[in-house]
Amino acid sequence: MTNRQILLVSRPTGEPTRDNFKLIESPIQPLADGQVLIKHSYLSLDPYMRGRMNDAKSYAPPQPLNEVMIGGTVGDVIESRNPSFKAGDHVVGMGGWQEYSVVSGGIRKVDTSHIPLSAYLGPVGMPGVTAWYGLNKICEAKAGQTIAVTAASGAVGSVVGQLAKAKGCRAVGFAGGPDKCNYVTGELGFDACIDYKAHADPKALYGALKAATPNGIDGHFENVGGPALDAVVLRMNDHGRIALCGMISGYNGEPIPLRFPSVLLTSRLTLQGFIVSEHMDVWPAALTELGTLVATGKLKYRESIAEGLDAAPEAFFGMLKGKNFGKQLVKL
Amino acid sequence: MTNRQILLVSRPTGEPTRDNFKLIESPIQPLADGQVLIKHSYLSLDPYMRGRMNDAKSYAPPQPLNEVMIGGTVGDVIESRNPSFKAGDHVVGMGGWQEYSVVSGGIRKVDTSHIPLSAYLGPVGMPGVTAWYGLNKICEAKAGQTIAVTAASGAVGSVVGQLAKAKGCRAVGFAGGPDKCNYVTGELGFDACIDYKAHADPKALYGALKAATPNGIDGHFENVGGPALDAVVLRMNDHGRIALCGMISGYNGEPIPLRFPSVLLTSRLTLQGFIVSEHMDVWPAALTELGTLVATGKLKYRESIAEGLDAAPEAFFGMLKGKNFGKQLVKL
Repeated sequence: MTNRQILLVSRPTGEPTRDNFKLIESPIQPLADGQVLIKHSYLSLDPYMRGRMNDAKSYAPPQPLNEVMIGGTVGDVIESRNPSFKAGDHVVGMGGWQEYSVVSGGIRKVDTSHIPLSAYLGPVGMPGVTAWYGLNKICEAKAGQTIAVTAASGAVGSVVGQLAKAKGCRAVGFAGGPDKCNYVTGELGFDACIDYKAHADPKALYGALKAATPNGIDGHFENVGGPALDAVVLRMNDHGRIALCGMISGYNGEPIPLRFPSVLLTSRLTLQGFIVSEHMDVWPAALTELGTLVATGKLKYRESIAEGLDAAPEAFFGMLKGKNFGKQLVKL
Repeated sequence: MTNRQILLVSRPTGEPTRDNFKLIESPIQPLADGQVLIKHSYLSLDPYMRGRMNDAKSYAPPQPLNEVMIGGTVGDVIESRNPSFKAGDHVVGMGGWQEYSVVSGGIRKVDTSHIPLSAYLGPVGMPGVTAWYGLNKICEAKAGQTIAVTAASGAVGSVVGQLAKAKGCRAVGFAGGPDKCNYVTGELGFDACIDYKAHADPKALYGALKAATPNGIDGHFENVGGPALDAVVLRMNDHGRIALCGMISGYNGEPIPLRFPSVLLTSRLTLQGFIVSEHMDVWPAALTELGTLVATGKLKYRESIAEGLDAAPEAFFGMLKGKNFGKQLVKL
């Protein structure tokens, strides 16, 4: 039985390219005691992967070269020598950029009777819990407040805004282009969405944000960094709170400065960076809430699905540029 | 009886100048019921005053034009029609840039038997409580940690480092020039002090900081902003905490960007701006601790004293450029 795998073979300088990856075929060895063989249905593509491609200090060690790229996966157990799992089980784990994985742990069974399997890589998975944590534990969102979020049509941002609305907040998103913005307000129910591509000038962007946030901003969830964050900082109410979740705009090279750090002082803001994997204690409660909302149709989400492992690198590059619309997956 | 007062008569564009101020003489009116007449002994000059001179959104309303400049003062009650105060009482308050003030409240009596009156404008006053709050409530300093602070020889920074040492932390300061640095390590007992003037290049500054912080930095107290803060951000340990108290380097004009905001994410830092007047609940405990330390000689401080109200503007300009050494006062 043959597996197909994508390895990281070199580190990007600037934008990653196809040459940084290599697709190989390798035989699947017979299972040892305690092991499980999983056939992946979907691979998740996430912005954090770009950071792992660099050989730099970050919140996680770099992706080692010549090993299978890290990545979340959902799939089915097709063979098990582990008493906790049996063939046919649906599982979510960190299977990586490959069609099969052999693991002895680090997976969990999921129920697909009311929740589609792929949702466990999105709103009922890491992106959903990320949104939940930042909104509840860092922004400390409360009814009546205004909550802003960048990459609002994305896997994390879409959940941030919908959870904020469910709490009774005003939700304001940033997204790129009219299609995404219409989706954010029309489908997801945000109160407003700012098309950052239509406001290249910082003053125009601030003006659009001001119009969308008549009472200022109390909590902000940052996925991107750069001009939108600068505008948000200027628009924050006193004692506002900013959850720093992603800085995708600076992942490819030059760091993007924060233009007005003195406003963090004058408005007495709190800005906190976080990574959800350090807060495993909240996952059960968050996943229960998120799963219920998805199962009952109250939490909407959208997926961009690339077909086949070969398509993963291009889909990944597109996601880094915001070409995806909703959660980026690869169907394996 | 005649009072001499300094008014703000215009707002600076860039560095403030003598023309922004006007010294006038005005008669002191007879006291009304409930009022107290205070003869000021010392006026405090503080960096926050520069912010108040601008007509911009900040944590406090701008200083109104053609009114007496705001400022902390200590002095003696010389006449009272208020039952809470009597002639001879030593009081601290916000008397402003003038030789006398007439108030009906907003002052408190202080004991000068073990603590010099001027110290109530420094280590046992607003600067001291500012240091106490940022170190304890934002940095959450604990024994064994490394605490950094900019403007380490100043009224606030000197207290931050000494309180950190008293907790069992490693204290590392930034100051301008060998005299201040020698004072910070020799007199105040910091473990190290970085002369930022000797390291104009960001890489050199980072190198000096790295050498002074072999275990990284766990908590940082920022009084200045700019290159030192950039170096500190890069040197912070995971989950480090930064108290943003002052951004004096950017008060005169162009905002100074924060160069590496993405590190706030990758190191999962918390950065929080604060103003101590919003945390009056901690003042009694903080002042008790600070007063005891000063009275017993365990908390050292230094004062730069300008002579006479006329000297206040020049002394203020000098303080903004770091020409003072320790707490800047004006003897009235």
